[in-house]
Formats: sequence, C-alpha cells, structure tokens
Amino acid sequence: MKIAILGLGTVGSGVLEILKKIENLEVVKTFERKITSDLSTTNINEIINDESINLVVETLGGISPAYEYICAALKNGKHVVTANKAVVARYLDEFLKLAKENNVAFLFEASVAGGIPWIASLEKAKRIDTITSLYGIMNGTSNFIIDYMYNHDADFDNTLLKAQKFGYAEKDPSADIDGDDVVNKLIVSCAIAHDILLKNKIPKYSMRNLKKVDIDFLKSKNLSTKFIGEINLIDSKLSSSAMLNIISNLDIENSIHSNFNIVSLVGDSIGELKFYGQGAGKLATANAIVQDILDIHLNSNRQTLTLKNDYTFSTELENKSFLIRSNNRIENDFIVNVEEFNNNFYHYTDKITFSQLNEILESIDNEYLVAKFR
Amino acid sequence: MKIAILGLGTVGSGVLEILKKIENLEVVKTFERKITSDLSTTNINEIINDESINLVVETLGGISPAYEYICAALKNGKHVVTANKAVVARYLDEFLKLAKENNVAFLFEASVAGGIPWIASLEKAKRIDTITSLYGIMNGTSNFIIDYMYNHDADFDNTLLKAQKFGYAEKDPSADIDGDDVVNKLIVSCAIAHDILLKNKIPKYSMRNLKKVDIDFLKSKNLSTKFIGEINLIDSKLSSSAMLNIISNLDIENSIHSNFNIVSLVGDSIGELKFYGQGAGKLATANAIVQDILDIHLNSNRQTLTLKNDYTFSTELENKSFLIRSNNRIENDFIVNVEEFNNNFYHYTDKITFSQLNEILESIDNEYLVAKFR
Repeated sequence: MKIAILGLGTVGSGVLEILKKIENLEVVKTFERKITSDLSTTNINEIINDESINLVVETLGGISPAYEYICAALKNGKHVVTANKAVVARYLDEFLKLAKENNVAFLFEASVAGGIPWIASLEKAKRIDTITSLYGIMNGTSNFIIDYMYNHDADFDNTLLKAQKFGYAEKDPSADIDGDDVVNKLIVSCAIAHDILLKNKIPKYSMRNLKKVDIDFLKSKNLSTKFIGEINLIDSKLSSSAMLNIISNLDIENSIHSNFNIVSLVGDSIGELKFYGQGAGKLATANAIVQDILDIHLNSNRQTLTLKNDYTFSTELENKSFLIRSNNRIENDFIVNVEEFNNNFYHYTDKITFSQLNEILESIDNEYLVAKFR
Repeated sequence: MKIAILGLGTVGSGVLEILKKIENLEVVKTFERKITSDLSTTNINEIINDESINLVVETLGGISPAYEYICAALKNGKHVVTANKAVVARYLDEFLKLAKENNVAFLFEASVAGGIPWIASLEKAKRIDTITSLYGIMNGTSNFIIDYMYNHDADFDNTLLKAQKFGYAEKDPSADIDGDDVVNKLIVSCAIAHDILLKNKIPKYSMRNLKKVDIDFLKSKNLSTKFIGEINLIDSKLSSSAMLNIISNLDIENSIHSNFNIVSLVGDSIGELKFYGQGAGKLATANAIVQDILDIHLNSNRQTLTLKNDYTFSTELENKSFLIRSNNRIENDFIVNVEEFNNNFYHYTDKITFSQLNEILESIDNEYLVAKFR
C-alpha cells in the first residue's frame, strides 16, 4: 500500500517513523512547506493526482486547507486517515458521503483521545449496546493543569506557564481551557456512538477562573474536580456538556495524572468500560493513525457510519446540581446552600437545567467558577 | 448464522438473551443437563453432527467435557467461541491447530477480564508494538475482598463470607485468592501478546493471609495493595508473577473498587493503555462472547495466532523489592529493614529474584504475607 502524509509536524513524522517498521506499508510522498527529503513535495497535486497512492494521512490540523485536501483525496479514490478533530467535527457528513461515493475509507481514530483506541471501541460497543452515556477526561492540557494544582498546591497562572514550558499547552490556551477542544471531540464521539453529527451548541463552561482556593475548598471535603466532556442519552434525547465536574477523591478520574486521558462508555449489557492512555504526543497519536491504516490494509471491515439527520438535542434534559464560586453572595431561588471559604462564596444549587444555571450566571460578575456535581 | 450454546448457566443464558436482539444470529440449540425449552438438547451429538450449525459457544467451564466438545466442534468445521480460561490456557495450541486445519475461527475474548475488550486490544496493539509489559487486576473476587477490607476496616474472613454471600466468591475460593485464576489469564494474555503458550510455572503467592493489620500498616504509609498478575519482557526473555503488589494510594489501580478489573499494556510507541470494566457477570461476559461472534459473522479479519515453541522464561530476571510480614523477625542477608507494627514484623527486602525470595519464605512459618513493590 502506497501512502502520502500531509504535514510532517510532530504527529506526521511519528507516522513516518512507525511506518518504517511495518511491511507492505510504504510512505512515498510527504507534503511539506519546503523540501526536506527525497519524499518531500510542496505541490499537493503531486499527491492528489498520483494514481499509485492508495491512502492519504492528513496531519495538517485546522480547517483549511485540510478540508479541501481531504475532499480532493477522497474524490480521487484515496482512503483518508486523519487526526484532525476540528475538520472532522465540522465536515464529517461530507467526508463520509465522498468516501462512500468513491468506495474508500475515511477513518479518524487519532482525532479523539490520541493513542487511546476510543473510536474503534465505541464502534464495537454499539454493535450490541445502546450507548447511554459517554464521558471522560478528553483534554490533556486541562488535566495537566488541574492535576498539578491539586498535587502541588499551585495556582492557575503559574501552572499554565509550566504547561506551556513543557509543551503541554499552546501559547493561546483557549481551545484547551475554555472547552472548544473537548466540544469537537464530543461531536466526533457522538457521531460514532449515535450516528448523529451534532450541530447544536453544546453547553461549555471555561475552567480559566479555577483558583488554588477552589482546590483547597474541594480538598477539605474529600472532593476533586476534573474537566469532563459528556454525552448522555435521556429518553431517546441527547444532552451534552463540557465543563468542570466535581468528583469524589476515590473516583478513578481523580487518579488520572499529568496530561493523560480517560474516556468511558456505558452500554446496556456491557455496563461501564473505561479506556486510559496518552491523549496526545508524537508516537501515541501516530500509533492510532497507523492502526487505522492497518485496518484499511488488512481489510478489517470497520463499520461504515451512516449519519441520521433527525435527532433531539436539549439543554433542558439534565437536572444536575452545580457548585458556583463567586466573589459575592448570590441571591437566587435555585441556590440551596452557601458556604464562605477564604473570602469566597461557594453556592450549591438545587437540581437544575443548563438554562436555569445560565440565568444565575448571567446575573453575576464573570469572575465566577462553575462545576457540575457528577 | 446458526449458533449452538453449550451450557446455559449465567453466561450462556446471557448470550442467549443478547443474541435475541441481534439480526442474522440465531441460536438453534442449547446443550443442557435437562430439557428446559424447545431449543434444549441433552445429546451433544445433535449439535456436533448438525451441519447447519456454523458456530458453537462453549460456556460449560472446566476442562472436561469442554475440551472434548471444543475439539469435536472444530473438527466438524464449526467456529468456536469460549469464555473458558482454564481450557484455553491448557489446550490453546491444540485448538488453534484444529481451527486452522478446518478453516474456522477459535476466539476467546471473554476468557480474560470478562467484558473488557482486552484480547482484541492486545491483538491490535501488537500489530505495531512489542508489548514490553502487561499487567493488571484480573480477578474480581480478590479485588472485592481487598477493596472492602481497605474501605471498611474489615478483616479477611468476614469479607470473604460477604463476597460469597454476594455471589462474588465461590464456596471454595482457592482459585481466586491463591492466584490460579490469574495464572490462567496470564497464560492466555501471553499467547496473544507474544505468540507463546507458557508451560512454565508462573510464580504465584496467595493473598489468603492478608489481615486488617496489613491494610492498616500500608495505610499509615499512604500505600495500598492489589492482587496483580503481570508478564514482563526483559531482554527478550519473559518473566511473570501473580501476587499482591504494593502501590501508591494515588495510583489508578487503587481506585478500582468492588469486583471490577483493570488491565494494562505497555508498548514501545503507544506507551501505556489501560482498560477497565466488569471482569465477570452475566451480561458483560456475554457481551464479550457476542463481540467475538460478530467479528466472525462480519468477517472482521481478526489476526490468526501462530504459536512459537521456543522462548525463554525465567524467575531470575526480575529484581524487585518485597515486603514480608511474619510473626517473627526474619534473619536474612537480603532483608534491609524491619518495622514492628501491632506485634507484627514487616520486612523490606533488597532487590532480589523470585528464587531468593522463595529461599526466605521457605525458612519461615507459613503464616507470612508477601507483596511486591511495583
């Protein structure tokens, strides 16, 4: 099988490295900004129009030109494997249609939870079960920050700097700490679990106001917090969120350290399954890409996704209790308890919907922190 | 596809229940001790000699007649799926040979870690990586006992009674608490990971002498213990053990509660992956069996195992430190520290091999407890 890799950054060069060890899988071209080896080309058409190339690996990231190149490769009868969650979350329906029309595969294991075999496991689980819930720590950066703050009594800003120094966080950390990255991963996971490409706005709440005092408050109650994305099926309707969750310090999620990920699914016969591993990184992510390539090469008969257009998504389905920390005491009927801790006010809400939560948050200054009780 | 189930106990009836919901998979016969339905037969030949039956599910357990029936089914050109770790660990080479000769599949996902997709995940991981280590909590009974003792300040005997009452432990708990069950699961896992059917004796050390005082001692040091089976590849040689391991109370394994299992693999590019779920139980185990059936039915092209005969296994490869609790102070050159705790003596050894450990244990009365530092 002849393979081209678009983008030879961290993950792309990891794919090249792993494929060198595997028989019958030959990288024949790499698309790069400049020529770095005999394989390099700066002209995408040398790949798209080369009929001998069977499979294209896209590791450019971002929407454009990844979107255009993926479409062109599929139209020209090439299998496509990508790690790009942003482009998959936005254009999965179009990619699947093109793949079907051209009788090729479009796979994207590496786009969620890096090296963890999450997509393939969801695919398998749903052959038997309805996936009533999927959730987890899907972002390594935010987990590194929380875990470090929790175990080193550190504050947010210094920890973010450390994460940036270690290469765990980008210069602009917004996608990781405000929830957009997790939202993309939820959209991709939902497509696999429910054959639905969510176009609704998933409620997301940033963790950028997390302070040392919050960690101290939770610790004093044997609690912890993690940034968790989830999709729940409630009476055949979908509900989702990406936000800090409050968990017991005995929970497995509380033992997930550094920038590791853990993702869970709940099915009616299998119960709860959890998958843990590196959510990012050169070789782990590259491994997930090569697994997809091998599935295509070995004819593993992965399930073909057919997306449905009609579904019900609602932010009104879940009734959860939330913890809100603010500088001032909040007056609201849904708040059932308030504790003062180091000059901060911690408010416990009743079981409420996201709209009711938003109503409260809109009434206060935006220094607040909000977390959901699991 | 026409299916027969041998044995309609907990797991077998779970398989029947799940298959009712799945199209194109029809259970046409169930082999039982007495007739309970239109599907029942008490005559195994009605299944073995029925040419319309494509696949046999074996959930009888134990060695005989499971061994004879599996051989007969394979010889008669039927795929076989089993949950029976004891028979797989002993006769895998013979079953694989018969399956190959008769061009059918022999799969056994449910035989290790129940509902956790462990076997298929190991298979996939080794397509790319060398599995340098596999380990985990592979026995739900022993984990229930340890977890309960740890979280309820309970002693061993009462906890075992409770486990038996809940149906988590058998009347004779020996296989679960002395390590034989874990050894079988290690043998099966090793076959998948390394294409080797271990015939050597894996060092195993019982947990039946675990006392409340041991838990208290470990807790006082922020440590915990779990019964862990592992297989390590050291300089191309295999090492293995099934015994209590001492872990940090921050480790993921310490968050595995009740009778759940967690199994891990370490590969050179993927790093560490962990898989968590129900290690036993009607529907979870049945789910794993049905996944194997679906892989055969959907032509998923699972890898065919070819066992190698030559390998090096040694109990001399690992150099680990051990903790030994005994009634008396042990005199031995390998013991580097001793602490007295509630009239018990806790001995810390140097890094030693299993033979050196055995030497120490043979010199003391058999009330000892031994655990390995991870």
